[in-house]
Amino acid sequence: MDFAVRAAKPEDCKAVSRMIMELAVYEKMPDQVKISHKELEQDGFSAVPFFHCFVAEVSGEHKSKEGHTTVGYALYFYTYSTWKGRSVYLEDIYVMPEFRGKGIGKALLSNVAVAAKEQQCVRLQLSALDWNTPSLDFYFTKGAQDLTATEGWHFLRFDGEALDKLAKEAPRN
Amino acid sequence: MDFAVRAAKPEDCKAVSRMIMELAVYEKMPDQVKISHKELEQDGFSAVPFFHCFVAEVSGEHKSKEGHTTVGYALYFYTYSTWKGRSVYLEDIYVMPEFRGKGIGKALLSNVAVAAKEQQCVRLQLSALDWNTPSLDFYFTKGAQDLTATEGWHFLRFDGEALDKLAKEAPRN
Repeated sequence: MDFAVRAAKPEDCKAVSRMIMELAVYEKMPDQVKISHKELEQDGFSAVPFFHCFVAEVSGEHKSKEGHTTVGYALYFYTYSTWKGRSVYLEDIYVMPEFRGKGIGKALLSNVAVAAKEQQCVRLQLSALDWNTPSLDFYFTKGAQDLTATEGWHFLRFDGEALDKLAKEAPRN
Repeated sequence: MDFAVRAAKPEDCKAVSRMIMELAVYEKMPDQVKISHKELEQDGFSAVPFFHCFVAEVSGEHKSKEGHTTVGYALYFYTYSTWKGRSVYLEDIYVMPEFRGKGIGKALLSNVAVAAKEQQCVRLQLSALDWNTPSLDFYFTKGAQDLTATEGWHFLRFDGEALDKLAKEAPRN
């Protein structure tokens, strides 16, 4: 089956939003998704976008059971390492279950790697859940290192009241 | 002791670069630092900067043993959650040892939280090493959650040959 990977346009946000929810269901946290295609359109396509995105498409004759032709996405943004410099962070990569095993995930990941190299980035980073063996195996096969396992890096988050409280405590200069 | 926190300027990059190395020594990986103040100037102060930074300063009369008045920094960038939207990632936060316990770290962190709220970000995220109990305690006291411990998120990285290989495997569309 042929497919194509291309940079997402604002009009792809509905399809991306649908797949964000499908991925959250797979990750067992569907109630966590609070944003819609409208926020994606705003946040990804402004003068200084908060993210970039690739989508994978198949032709109409290979559409999904529900009639979708946009069957995968990879959403990423540029970050920075104070040790190594420019980096890319892959927030999400997803291929609809019925389209797996055809190289679409690999093509999406490779396109993000190309974007990284074009911007002189030296790293492509991401996170994965420790129980998600199929994904971990996919990344390890392609040469990823698990920095939590080897160096002990843990992910921390402030949100909600904790973030509000921090912001309120800023000294006035 | 009085101190002030302000947005970094290009001319602060030498001081930030010095403190990046001090932090890497503390984190037991000084040989990992490959970038200098020149890359910081380029990457942080272009039209679409890869990062933003606050510095903490003391007056000349309170300068460090080596004569430094820039005694801390917090380096961050904007990221994106496909579940919650706009986020901030705190890459580094550091206060020189002889200036700790004076609220400088807290002030730097709070200023990043203010920047996050100003951009309608709903999360401030960071990573810390699992053996770095003083830092972890500092963050936990302020309300941070450890997502590696509670949800099982692991940090993965592609770099060097693994990243080159990924980029070379991109299908030509």
